[in-house]
Formats: sequence, structure tokens, C-alpha cells
Amino acid sequence: MQQTFTTFEITTRGKGLHDFTGEVARWVQGSALRDGMLTLFARHTSASLVIQENADPDVRGDLERFFARLVPEHDALYRHTLEGPDDMPAHVRCALTQTQLSIPVREGRMVLGTWQGIYLFEHRRAGQTREVAAHLLGE
Amino acid sequence: MQQTFTTFEITTRGKGLHDFTGEVARWVQGSALRDGMLTLFARHTSASLVIQENADPDVRGDLERFFARLVPEHDALYRHTLEGPDDMPAHVRCALTQTQLSIPVREGRMVLGTWQGIYLFEHRRAGQTREVAAHLLGE
Amino acid sequence: MQQTFTTFEITTRGKGLHDFTGEVARWVQGSALRDGMLTLFARHTSASLVIQENADPDVRGDLERFFARLVPEHDALYRHTLEGPDDMPAHVRCALTQTQLSIPVREGRMVLGTWQGIYLFEHRRAGQTREVAAHLLGE
Repeated sequence: MQQTFTTFEITTRGKGLHDFTGEVARWVQGSALRDGMLTLFARHTSASLVIQENADPDVRGDLERFFARLVPEHDALYRHTLEGPDDMPAHVRCALTQTQLSIPVREGRMVLGTWQGIYLFEHRRAGQTREVAAHLLGE
Repeated sequence: MQQTFTTFEITTRGKGLHDFTGEVARWVQGSALRDGMLTLFARHTSASLVIQENADPDVRGDLERFFARLVPEHDALYRHTLEGPDDMPAHVRCALTQTQLSIPVREGRMVLGTWQGIYLFEHRRAGQTREVAAHLLGE
Repeated sequence: MQQTFTTFEITTRGKGLHDFTGEVARWVQGSALRDGMLTLFARHTSASLVIQENADPDVRGDLERFFARLVPEHDALYRHTLEGPDDMPAHVRCALTQTQLSIPVREGRMVLGTWQGIYLFEHRRAGQTREVAAHLLGE
């Protein structure tokens, strides 16, 4: 059993879902490990991870709109407002989605379903460079 | 350290929670591994995983009703509507719950709390056959 | 490759976020394993885990207030009411957050981002003693 690490750097363009399935798949494929477990960990409190449908781009737009409505900016409830109207909503959106995902790997490929893509979910208005730590364990 | 894989096939009967703790526990118990880490991964974007109370069945009904109200069908917000009124809500419900769960294993048993069960959360109206990939690593 | 287990006991004081990053960091640091994967698993259906900002305490207050409003007590929707008005909301809040977190470890430290802390999210009104099972795998 062996392990290997990397970090994916993802440049976002404001709120919404950024597909990085391809980068992850290439790294897994390029490693010496055929069967094992991949873990992705977003090193942020205003961007998170989700598995979502990779076919119709409208899904990503609908998801962003749903979260924008569920967790509105300028909500009188928030006291943490100094970092901008999108900051506290970003923290709530992180709590409601995932910071980490683990995906089994067989024969050099993640066992994603046909319609599953791996997305970084950016919750801030401004584009950012985000880091996702990755760990692959296997043989 | 060794690893083993399987896939659980779960037949659902429409929206709601399907307990498959027993199948998972039997597989873990039947493996040669006594101590380690189990990971479950739902290979879908319209069904997800949750740990929930396994005692009162009303909890499962309340949970389904809560999500049905929080993520309504026929919401004017959705553009992704071609696959039916329950499809985009299913994607949102997946983002709000979990696609993957990892559970430590000690002496051949998952370290679940007394009231914890493992559930597949079906988000489509129609019954489906769902696949949950499983990976057990340990010794 | 080796593994080690422990259980963190966390005493809460009612609803809200309890930071236990320090306890976890000390256990990881004190283990013989330098590089690997840490997994935390909350053994409860009315307390969960989240990664959140560790700087401004207002974030934690805002998060608790957001969830209290999103998942209200005394909601006519609930049938599971025998264990108190805060019990079914606690189960819903668990489904909306995480029961488990996995974090890569490098050189004896979790790869948390600068602003990330690990929190137990208590969802019951009364203080409780909560158990978080931990597993560290690595070399």
C-alpha cells in the first residue's frame, strides 16, 4: 500500500460551479496506483466541493441560483459583515455543501457514475485562486 | 494493510430514505479486515447518502417532507426542466446532503452510534436501482 | 502504512459550534505517523461536523442563527416530536451538514487552510457529551 499527495490550484470567476474532474482524473491515471481511495479537501471556508451532473450546464446555473436565494446576501441576521456582503453567505454555503470528498479508484479510474462531475463551488463574488489538497492511497 | 471493494445495489421506491446499514455491516463483518476505514460512495446525482436516526420511522418521513418543502418542484427558478419536475430538485438535494460517507471500523464493526443508520436518500419520484461503491481498507 | 484510532469526547453547552481543532492537532502531532489521512466521525444524529472560519466569533453565531431559522422548532411539518421540539430539527441539521470529515496530513499537520477550524455542531438545546471517532492512517 502506498500514498501520494498533490494540490490542485483552481482559478474561479466568481460564484458558481467549476468542473475540475479532468485534472483529477489525469493525476489519478498518471500515478502508479491502480486501486485505492482518492480524497479531495478544499482548503477554504468560502469555497466548497460538490459532485453534480456534468451534462446540462443549466444544472450548474440552477444550483447557483438556488443557493443564492436560500442564503441571501444583506440578510439582517448576519453580524459578520466586515468582509463584504458575500462573505457570511459563503460560510453558510460551505456548511451546507462539502469541504471534502472521497472517491474509490479502480483500475486507475475514479468510480464516478456516468453523469457525475467533481466541482469546486465558489461562493465569493470575485474570482479567486483556490487550493484543493488531494491524497491517493492504494496499490 | 489490505483493501477490498464491492458495490451495493439498492432498489428504491420513490423519494425518501432507504436503510441499508445491514447489508454494509454484513459485508464488513464478512471481510478479513478487523480494523480500518470504510468508505461508501453514491454513483448518482439524484440520490445521496445520510446518517440518520434508526429508531422512529417518523424521522425519515419528516426528513423527506422537510426536503420536499425546502427544495420544491415546479420552482420558477429552474431552467433544467426537461428531465421532469423532480430532476433539478434532486440535484439540489444531493448538494445539500452527502455523496460519500467514511466510517471507521473496529473489531469488524462500524463505529456507528447507537441510533445511527446508513441511508440512501432517493430524490426521484420513480423507483430506481442505485449503486453505492464501497471500499474497505485495514488489517 | 499504519493506522491508529482514538475517540474525542466533547462537552457542549447547547446549540452552536464547538472548536476542537486543537485536540485533533495535538493527537495527530503526537502520533508516529507523519503523512497520511485523518478521518473524524461524529457518533450522533443530533450533532455534526463542519469546517468553518476560526477568526471572527460572529461567524459561529451567524451560522447558528441561520440554521435555527432554516430549520425551525415547532414546525407543523414534524411528526417526530416526542423527544422535544429541538430533536427533529437536530436530525435535519445533521443531514444538511456533515457527519464525517477526512483531512490529509503532511509532516505531522493537517493541511487545513489558514482560516479553517474543525467544529462539532451541537443541535440540541441541552449540553451533551459527544463522541467523535478518529482514525489516522499513514506512515
